[in-house]
Amino acid sequence: MTKIPHRIILAEEQMPKQWYNLRADMKSQPDPLLNPATFQPIRTAELYPIFCEKLAEQEMDCTTAYFDIPEPIQEVYRAYRPSPLCRAYALEKHLKTPAKIYFKFEGGNTSGSHKLNSAVAQAYYAKEQGLTALTTETGAGQWGTALAEACAYFGIHLDVFMVKSSYSQKPYRKTIMQTFGATVTASPSDTTKAGRTILSEKPDTTGSLGCAISEAVERAVSTPGCRYVLGSVLNQVLLHQSIIGLECKKAMELLGEYPDIVIGCAGGGSNLGGLIAPFMQDKLLGRANPYFIAVEPASCPSLTRGRYAYDFCDTGKVTPLARMYTLGSGFIPSPNHAGGLRYHGMSPILSKLYHDGYLDEARAEEQSKVFDAAILFAKLETILPAPESAHAIRCAIDEAIKCKETGEAKTILFGLTGTGYFDMAAYASYLEGKMTDSIPSDQDLQAGFDSLPKIPGIQE
Amino acid sequence: MTKIPHRIILAEEQMPKQWYNLRADMKSQPDPLLNPATFQPIRTAELYPIFCEKLAEQEMDCTTAYFDIPEPIQEVYRAYRPSPLCRAYALEKHLKTPAKIYFKFEGGNTSGSHKLNSAVAQAYYAKEQGLTALTTETGAGQWGTALAEACAYFGIHLDVFMVKSSYSQKPYRKTIMQTFGATVTASPSDTTKAGRTILSEKPDTTGSLGCAISEAVERAVSTPGCRYVLGSVLNQVLLHQSIIGLECKKAMELLGEYPDIVIGCAGGGSNLGGLIAPFMQDKLLGRANPYFIAVEPASCPSLTRGRYAYDFCDTGKVTPLARMYTLGSGFIPSPNHAGGLRYHGMSPILSKLYHDGYLDEARAEEQSKVFDAAILFAKLETILPAPESAHAIRCAIDEAIKCKETGEAKTILFGLTGTGYFDMAAYASYLEGKMTDSIPSDQDLQAGFDSLPKIPGIQE
Repeated sequence: MTKIPHRIILAEEQMPKQWYNLRADMKSQPDPLLNPATFQPIRTAELYPIFCEKLAEQEMDCTTAYFDIPEPIQEVYRAYRPSPLCRAYALEKHLKTPAKIYFKFEGGNTSGSHKLNSAVAQAYYAKEQGLTALTTETGAGQWGTALAEACAYFGIHLDVFMVKSSYSQKPYRKTIMQTFGATVTASPSDTTKAGRTILSEKPDTTGSLGCAISEAVERAVSTPGCRYVLGSVLNQVLLHQSIIGLECKKAMELLGEYPDIVIGCAGGGSNLGGLIAPFMQDKLLGRANPYFIAVEPASCPSLTRGRYAYDFCDTGKVTPLARMYTLGSGFIPSPNHAGGLRYHGMSPILSKLYHDGYLDEARAEEQSKVFDAAILFAKLETILPAPESAHAIRCAIDEAIKCKETGEAKTILFGLTGTGYFDMAAYASYLEGKMTDSIPSDQDLQAGFDSLPKIPGIQE
Repeated sequence: MTKIPHRIILAEEQMPKQWYNLRADMKSQPDPLLNPATFQPIRTAELYPIFCEKLAEQEMDCTTAYFDIPEPIQEVYRAYRPSPLCRAYALEKHLKTPAKIYFKFEGGNTSGSHKLNSAVAQAYYAKEQGLTALTTETGAGQWGTALAEACAYFGIHLDVFMVKSSYSQKPYRKTIMQTFGATVTASPSDTTKAGRTILSEKPDTTGSLGCAISEAVERAVSTPGCRYVLGSVLNQVLLHQSIIGLECKKAMELLGEYPDIVIGCAGGGSNLGGLIAPFMQDKLLGRANPYFIAVEPASCPSLTRGRYAYDFCDTGKVTPLARMYTLGSGFIPSPNHAGGLRYHGMSPILSKLYHDGYLDEARAEEQSKVFDAAILFAKLETILPAPESAHAIRCAIDEAIKCKETGEAKTILFGLTGTGYFDMAAYASYLEGKMTDSIPSDQDLQAGFDSLPKIPGIQE
């Protein structure tokens, strides 16, 4: 048998021309989004003031399995896709594992992460609808960077609300968004009612994604020609990110491979949902039975310690309610948490799949062990991973070590969502021995759960 | 005709298995290196205290056209090579040019630049010789990062002397080298005699590459099992970097393309020499006549305003002398110069080719215009370029605009050597309108020329 190459990169014409909508094959659907004013299931048209129309339709569509990727989106994809599927030969050798370790690398574009896949789609649909501006929030900064890039390409203005702790810890993230022409504001800010309210209650807050979302939504609904976009959690985002998994599955087919274990880091779920999509389809349809693992930070453990409940997507409680694993929109991860993956909830699709047992396992990792894995990987595989991605690396290494113990030659696939060039302060902290782990106490979690909404007849 | 894809990435088995040595096809050879003590042409064995043996042999070999790439080096290359050859469709469209613009992108590895190609080779040969440590210098930090990565892979210790101005302006560059286990010292330092001498003469100096080289060489020759390595200028480096051009030429052949113009940024010449190597071979052998342009910063204009003379490679005057275009080893670029490309001399091979008219043109660009080009490119092509690489972008854009004016559909190829993730301070300075240009006065240049060595009978 020919040796499997280190990297498989599909030819341009092999790039998928459709996204895959996982919901079309789910026998049991995620619970409907609720209108935050009436607590009734929301209708598509009610989303139009917040989201652009095409995206609202994608958000609500549970039946269409495949959506054509419009040609202008494919045109941008072709500048950085298909992305490589890599075999981690050096890591395998170092671990002396019989396992085969593959990773899908999504960091090979300026945004440095997979976030660009959905940013391009969202900016394009906004442009197509004749909108002139978008707003969004960003935490670690990958989403804001990706969207700034996509908006620059399509000629749309972008307002980014950046979680204050990241804004001060990562000045260069701000610079790169500004390089692409975006306006960046630290959140909470005094430029919105939501921001002012939070600042008056907690003047020293370092901010949260939920709060930044509130500000971005408020700005969008109060600005003509402007809409709000979100880089994770939403169904539409998982749809766009399915290109990761679709490419990955096609490349593995060319190699005669199929994963036994699929691993993804999980914050809001955009990467995990995209990576597993076609493999989960196989599981839902009974064609195969890969084992899926979601890896989240111990400091923000929505799947492993959260509740499966209806919650707001934002702190300001103006967005639709989604049923998902959540720590409560009032939960704020400890400030010593370095990377992204800091959202209080989890994609409703992934939450449902986890609740129903299709997403097999969720695992919470402490950041010092995650950085151990990141540095080992960087030294062996010539890619400096983002801290988010390193959660998946940690898990892949642990699974490969298990294979060494049992002698099983499993095929492990994980998502390497992005690069860590903007996370050097966290790497420096680790190298200087200053990095600490933070596991929320039961009391911390209870404070978050106390912020869950009470919905008469549904959630008391 | 089928549309040319956005990116061509050769298959792993198409990756070149030999490097190409340009000197083998040069009818007129670069002048010999001179021993700094005797001013006599140096013999290979005299280089062994500084360089490891295989590299010293490669340095001196003017006749072997092709060198096999050892399998362990190929193994590392395969983790990030072949690198993509990209068609800048979006840039062409924006410029409304009939020209076809191609670029070879070398930033898709952790070091973020082409420097890894030679770093891997140099670390491997050191390991093979049984050495335990290497020293080097770094300016902007790309070379230090690449070498730290290569040394981590092969298990060799690395001491990096980093130009003081970069050390303080780019703390994260230091961190990434430390992440790979390197020791990083700001140069000039008090840890070497060369450093102490310079500090006593100029206590406030921001350092220079020439000074950092002196310190690194001194450390290497005074430490058992340790040698010095250099990331540019040297013949061996151009040899290793020929893989860029070899891949590029093969990919263009598959497309039925051949460049009319080949453009590379030039500091010490490693990227330019590697990119043009096989195309220059065509020119030397009369098979084709592409037009070559070297682009250098106006603040460090060795080709456009330097002298073709024998000079030391370092400020401490301990290295062999090379005949090259040089500003004098005492020349220090203005501190407001943001990127790399700050070496006082130019590769002896490229210097000779320029002197003899084979390298057709050298062009000096001011950094504000370079950053204009960088940001336009980033917005259109989804890659944030390093300031160094943006010199080539500036030139490619200008040549494409000329084509628009003349109506010529030229094929333009340029080298995109790396990414700008560690240059965000410079981008911020540009965005805030704080970036200034610095063109050395004739007096500044004269001060550099005054440092040129006097060599009885050769250079009085």
